[in-house]
Amino acid sequence: MEPRLAEAHLGGLLSQLGLDAEYVRGEADTLWWRRPSGDEVPVVDFVGGYGSLVLGHNHPEIVKHAQEVLRRQVPVHAQFSYHPYANDLALALNRVLWREFDTDEPYSAIFASTGAEAVEVALKHAEMARGARVAALREEIEAHLADAPAELAERVREHNEDRYDAPPVFLTLEGSFHGKLASSVQLTHNAGYRLPFRTLAVQARFVSGGEVAKEVEACRVTLLDVQDGGLVERDLPVIAAFFVEPIQGEGGIHVLDTGVAADIRAAADAGGFPVVVDEIQTGVGRTGAFFASSHIGLLGDYVLLAKALGGGIAKSAVTLMRQSAYVPDFELLHSSTFAKDAFSCLIGSRVVELVEQLDACGRAAERGAALESALRAVQADFPTVVADVRGRGLMLGLEFHDQSGAAGPVGELAGQGLLGYVLAGYLLNAHRVRVFPTASASHTLRFEPSVFITDEEIGQLATGLRAVCTALRDNPFALLPG
Amino acid sequence: MEPRLAEAHLGGLLSQLGLDAEYVRGEADTLWWRRPSGDEVPVVDFVGGYGSLVLGHNHPEIVKHAQEVLRRQVPVHAQFSYHPYANDLALALNRVLWREFDTDEPYSAIFASTGAEAVEVALKHAEMARGARVAALREEIEAHLADAPAELAERVREHNEDRYDAPPVFLTLEGSFHGKLASSVQLTHNAGYRLPFRTLAVQARFVSGGEVAKEVEACRVTLLDVQDGGLVERDLPVIAAFFVEPIQGEGGIHVLDTGVAADIRAAADAGGFPVVVDEIQTGVGRTGAFFASSHIGLLGDYVLLAKALGGGIAKSAVTLMRQSAYVPDFELLHSSTFAKDAFSCLIGSRVVELVEQLDACGRAAERGAALESALRAVQADFPTVVADVRGRGLMLGLEFHDQSGAAGPVGELAGQGLLGYVLAGYLLNAHRVRVFPTASASHTLRFEPSVFITDEEIGQLATGLRAVCTALRDNPFALLPG
Repeated sequence: MEPRLAEAHLGGLLSQLGLDAEYVRGEADTLWWRRPSGDEVPVVDFVGGYGSLVLGHNHPEIVKHAQEVLRRQVPVHAQFSYHPYANDLALALNRVLWREFDTDEPYSAIFASTGAEAVEVALKHAEMARGARVAALREEIEAHLADAPAELAERVREHNEDRYDAPPVFLTLEGSFHGKLASSVQLTHNAGYRLPFRTLAVQARFVSGGEVAKEVEACRVTLLDVQDGGLVERDLPVIAAFFVEPIQGEGGIHVLDTGVAADIRAAADAGGFPVVVDEIQTGVGRTGAFFASSHIGLLGDYVLLAKALGGGIAKSAVTLMRQSAYVPDFELLHSSTFAKDAFSCLIGSRVVELVEQLDACGRAAERGAALESALRAVQADFPTVVADVRGRGLMLGLEFHDQSGAAGPVGELAGQGLLGYVLAGYLLNAHRVRVFPTASASHTLRFEPSVFITDEEIGQLATGLRAVCTALRDNPFALLPG
Repeated sequence: MEPRLAEAHLGGLLSQLGLDAEYVRGEADTLWWRRPSGDEVPVVDFVGGYGSLVLGHNHPEIVKHAQEVLRRQVPVHAQFSYHPYANDLALALNRVLWREFDTDEPYSAIFASTGAEAVEVALKHAEMARGARVAALREEIEAHLADAPAELAERVREHNEDRYDAPPVFLTLEGSFHGKLASSVQLTHNAGYRLPFRTLAVQARFVSGGEVAKEVEACRVTLLDVQDGGLVERDLPVIAAFFVEPIQGEGGIHVLDTGVAADIRAAADAGGFPVVVDEIQTGVGRTGAFFASSHIGLLGDYVLLAKALGGGIAKSAVTLMRQSAYVPDFELLHSSTFAKDAFSCLIGSRVVELVEQLDACGRAAERGAALESALRAVQADFPTVVADVRGRGLMLGLEFHDQSGAAGPVGELAGQGLLGYVLAGYLLNAHRVRVFPTASASHTLRFEPSVFITDEEIGQLATGLRAVCTALRDNPFALLPG
């Protein structure tokens, strides 16, 4: 037996839960599971690469395009040269953004390879821009002090000195998920993912939706300035950015409230800091618009895309930044060997084309309605088991009532945050349906199939969910693995 | 004219330097440059994707394998399932490591998508492991205090209390480069890349090669403990890790001194912290061994690979960690949607196979010797222009004497750190040779071609370099962009 070297511990847990299926082929919303017997059994995939598969597994047009790019010997590695394909993709994304938000302001693009990297680019850029704002304010105050009486100037300088170095504040909402790299994980609310690494990077502040204005006010750091001979207060630009997801994915499929979005936009405009709209899971059509933030009229100063931008094959991500908030010198400080490569940019452009040609947004809305209706029917039949169905388009969640108080092993597993995984194991093994809970709300199952999901496949899910609900109500032991 | 949205500022600089070539095809060490006329002109590529192209652009066996993986509809997105292909790659890498270091300790693998992500994984894992060491020590001391006189215990607790929370120390050498994400960039010595983002993450300490033991000693934080009724000092595990490159790439192609490597290994063994060997640029055969650290007998507790692991097509990276230093629970806290995917793991396994089958290490040594000999001949002919030639295998650097004191525009450009880029522009346009300086030592050109580089191509480089040297000596104006 070969040693298990790639995440053996996780593999052991998956095995206990009956989730260690080996998938050998994927097409549209089907994964083929190779059984120990050698048979290949189709499984309907509602996980969809956590949002990456808007067009399904191995969409034939994307596969064909990838093979064509390889056949043409397009250079993947040509760093520090002219990259027209990167510009083409940036432009294609701009055109969609301009249309959905009825604007014409260009957004500059910094490409990366993963969603978490796009978050890190936003963090770095936001802090660089904030540094420039602090420096400009300092220069302005110093110019005033040069003309002020020496004693007054001295007093002001003494007050201000340490404050200029106040650490940046990054705000985000409670329940947020913005990645798991060493700095980005500090913007991810889940304490289990975040706290073991809290010593590595600046801590974000997590804001309750109803308290945006109050929290922004609480961050204020004031400087003194001398104007017209008198002392005045000036606000230090201490907030570097406000990160927000149009729909919280890993946090449990929570659609951002329009009022909260407006509060964030207003606070940012008043405070002069950027809103970073993280569309990594929501973007590229899944919710019925290319940018989910367009549903609620929230135009980000930065907009992040990844996952589905790779078409299910490439690893691609982008941080789009409106030109009025963009610092061109950032391009000289930040780079990545694998970013902005021809392979992923060319595939990204084909993805955008296909999303338009196939009306993926329209399909997501229509298929999403069908899926939501099936989930709501389950909820209606099992009101004591299903607490909520929510989401938008093909990004839907079904929340179970908290089972952690229940007697026996199901209550125990729920208390350990494993209920969703137990249900996932049951659905896979008994119903050939692949689902997962959201990462930070483990009694909410998430459903993110492709825009090609069929009524029959939705029916297969509904049958499985009804069996789950019946068992949770009548005989939870039936759900346990083995 | 379409708007320039993807790094237009950088594009403008490249254009000024004559470096904004559009490359439309790559094969082995040749890139085809599409000229405005439509002609495609071959350029010999000594940049090699900053070390990614050990097997050259679009190696036919890698391209064929990638196309085959696509044809078979292998699922790229199958997170949280059984991933035998990830284990196969981890095992193949272990076998090479066991052979080169004559060990049999298994190394666990956490996969990522880019080199910088592999560094971030190492940062997070090292801090998680350090946290566990701190907690274990605290528990041990608390057990002793429970048996100690109350007054003494109180005094010890008071002394220790704040010290348990001392921030982690990450050590690395001066001149290091370990990536550019928000935390990893703090391990990159270049102040221009690092300082604008210093507020985002924990600061590394940069150690001079000769002062490893002294610096480690300077980091000590001591706790008090009670043993056998008396006070004793205990060392807090404050150092999380020591990061080191076997050859500093971006820092200017500096081979790690064997004595310094031994000092780092000894300090880590004594201090109980891991050595993280960053083989992102050096690894996968380029230096004449699969792991460049094996030349100097430096076995890392963590070993990082990326770049060439992707075979010039995929985006793949891995953090290998010896099992005695590995924390299995890390697998439950860290994840990445794009990591550990079938596409990049299958390509990675084919890369390892090809490196073995083609004896890429042997070829790198032989071709490296030919390239080094050509560079040394240039140095011998232009001793007043060329300061040094150094490196190992196919990771070589040629350092020019500092030109920043020279009169005229070449001196000015050198003063701005642009000399290497000016020379790169000249070599590309006049000699059809693609080279770049290292990122943080801009008067050092780096050469990292594939193992298939020919004598003729090396000759073309040598001719170009002789022309550069002649001009630098006699008529620097000839080098300026048109």
